[in-house]
Amino acid sequence: MNSSSSDVFFLTMGAAMVLAMHAGFAFLEAGTVRRKNQVNALVRVLTDFGFATVAYFFIGFAIAYGVDFFKPVSQLNVLKGGSNGYEMVHFFFLLTFAAAVPAIISGGVTERIRFWPNVLATSILVGLIYPFYEGLAWNGNFGFQHWLQGRFGAPFHDFAGSVVVHAMGGFLALGAVSMLGARKGRYGPMGQLNAIFPSSIPFLALGSWILCVGWFGFNVMSAQSFTGISGLVAVNSLMAMVGGTLV
Amino acid sequence: MNSSSSDVFFLTMGAAMVLAMHAGFAFLEAGTVRRKNQVNALVRVLTDFGFATVAYFFIGFAIAYGVDFFKPVSQLNVLKGGSNGYEMVHFFFLLTFAAAVPAIISGGVTERIRFWPNVLATSILVGLIYPFYEGLAWNGNFGFQHWLQGRFGAPFHDFAGSVVVHAMGGFLALGAVSMLGARKGRYGPMGQLNAIFPSSIPFLALGSWILCVGWFGFNVMSAQSFTGISGLVAVNSLMAMVGGTLV
Amino acid sequence: MNSSSSDVFFLTMGAAMVLAMHAGFAFLEAGTVRRKNQVNALVRVLTDFGFATVAYFFIGFAIAYGVDFFKPVSQLNVLKGGSNGYEMVHFFFLLTFAAAVPAIISGGVTERIRFWPNVLATSILVGLIYPFYEGLAWNGNFGFQHWLQGRFGAPFHDFAGSVVVHAMGGFLALGAVSMLGARKGRYGPMGQLNAIFPSSIPFLALGSWILCVGWFGFNVMSAQSFTGISGLVAVNSLMAMVGGTLV
Repeated sequence: MNSSSSDVFFLTMGAAMVLAMHAGFAFLEAGTVRRKNQVNALVRVLTDFGFATVAYFFIGFAIAYGVDFFKPVSQLNVLKGGSNGYEMVHFFFLLTFAAAVPAIISGGVTERIRFWPNVLATSILVGLIYPFYEGLAWNGNFGFQHWLQGRFGAPFHDFAGSVVVHAMGGFLALGAVSMLGARKGRYGPMGQLNAIFPSSIPFLALGSWILCVGWFGFNVMSAQSFTGISGLVAVNSLMAMVGGTLV
Repeated sequence: MNSSSSDVFFLTMGAAMVLAMHAGFAFLEAGTVRRKNQVNALVRVLTDFGFATVAYFFIGFAIAYGVDFFKPVSQLNVLKGGSNGYEMVHFFFLLTFAAAVPAIISGGVTERIRFWPNVLATSILVGLIYPFYEGLAWNGNFGFQHWLQGRFGAPFHDFAGSVVVHAMGGFLALGAVSMLGARKGRYGPMGQLNAIFPSSIPFLALGSWILCVGWFGFNVMSAQSFTGISGLVAVNSLMAMVGGTLV
Repeated sequence: MNSSSSDVFFLTMGAAMVLAMHAGFAFLEAGTVRRKNQVNALVRVLTDFGFATVAYFFIGFAIAYGVDFFKPVSQLNVLKGGSNGYEMVHFFFLLTFAAAVPAIISGGVTERIRFWPNVLATSILVGLIYPFYEGLAWNGNFGFQHWLQGRFGAPFHDFAGSVVVHAMGGFLALGAVSMLGARKGRYGPMGQLNAIFPSSIPFLALGSWILCVGWFGFNVMSAQSFTGISGLVAVNSLMAMVGGTLV
């Protein structure tokens, strides 16, 4: 058993777990919206993932890492020797991260966005915008990290995408939410708040549970290789989740 | 860490993921049928799995691979040395494949089959019919592969059961569907089509998501050992899924 | 790839699978109770897990294994050398076991227990009572195993917690059920039985499926290291599940 095959397995398990998180996003959103929008939410998260994959495969991954897929697989194994296709699962794993950005935004704009503008925004985001920042932070593109190192004495350190993925998703969602405004009927004619109840707490809970479990793929497998695995990362993820629950 | 223990772990994870796919089949079917048949669908997929396990354990596995389980575990580790019970998880993994055949058929005959004929068909299928073909293709039984090799210059190559599992399930389902005919009430007295809506899109979506994630256990772990793992298989599975989604 | 990192990965996967089982407990319970209590069941299982984590982290783990977490992580890797934090995931894995005890009880007392007494009972149980027995059985505390060995010729052997976790949960649940009595309205004024139907068979089935799959993390990863993995354990778990299903 060589290091190449075990790292491929490691990343495949991580990618499968983060892929499952997209089901978590879907059910969290489907449970939260009104009943009439459940199907819309489920469909949107799934198609978002599809368009994100195509955009990241053909454009995004090349922007971030300079690796394009228009050549034989046998020439792709540049990072790691061996013939197990580490580059391929590396792409798969990072795709599940990239696709998380529109999924994070999705919950913010749900019930207020049309299908095609949403698809367009996802494709541009995952194909162009996200990989630009991802390349800056994780691949040293344009010497950005080098410059930071020289200027401030340390590069920008992002393990598991806390800024690259989550802050980006959050801030873009904030902008999108500001632009789209509140849901119709959220405020009455006198400005009073109308409560809109989640349509299904069980689906909401199901989505949350899937996300809880998937986090251990997201954070722990961010080590990207067997030998870099850290139990501390697992337990920190656990305590963060529990802290949030109890509060 | 020896190769035996890591391969046992590898197959155990694969088997667990394909086992989970049976929950996917169950929810896909439960969401698709009419509300009154939801429970029937859930129960049928579960009992199918139970009968398939017993049939494959006592009869099928011996037909396909000549390994029977009526002797001490310590004598079973013939394929791989070591004492980690590779043969046992090998059975478990291949069982989840075998049981997928009736599960594939199940969706085709749902709402139109009685409980006991279904159980009987599953038992015969997984205990006798499927292992016969499985042994031909994957274990070289009766010299079939050898004959193909000599006659056409290449053996029949089936990675991850595309014919052995999926085509077989599909064609048997086609036959079963033809015999059983349409659901009562599907056509009106003048031959017009009556739409029968799925009872629950969320359950249908849940089942589909479980299947999506499980595919990476089905296809990637079909390598059956750590060193045979292939990132290309993972990404091909991904692109197939996304292609289907977008279309 | 050293043994330390692979064992950390092994236990992390096991812990994630057993963590997922708590979602299984939640949906099994939510599907079984009356509709009005679904949300209560979902919330209670989740908060139970939160309080169990805190109690076990600060008190329980120290009682059972003499390891407390009030020192730098770098000093914690006592069991295994290496810097991958085996102790951390070891805690995580055993926590998911510890938290299973109140989850087992939970199903027995559902619909009849108030929120805060439940939280208090869970905290005392996982922080004090369970770790006392766990330490006796699995860490040789107070020389109990040594005494058994001397007195009866063999120590008490519990693989995967059949007594430490499951019998304890079951017997405590029996006590709790006796004390709390039947649900209001379960018996009519003349003593006749009133059936209370489960609110959702699909949720009940979902919970059961999650538990089925999680068992392979619970039992197989109880080996606690890669090299101890056993295919026999996997297949025994499988056959037990199938046996139960068919009966």
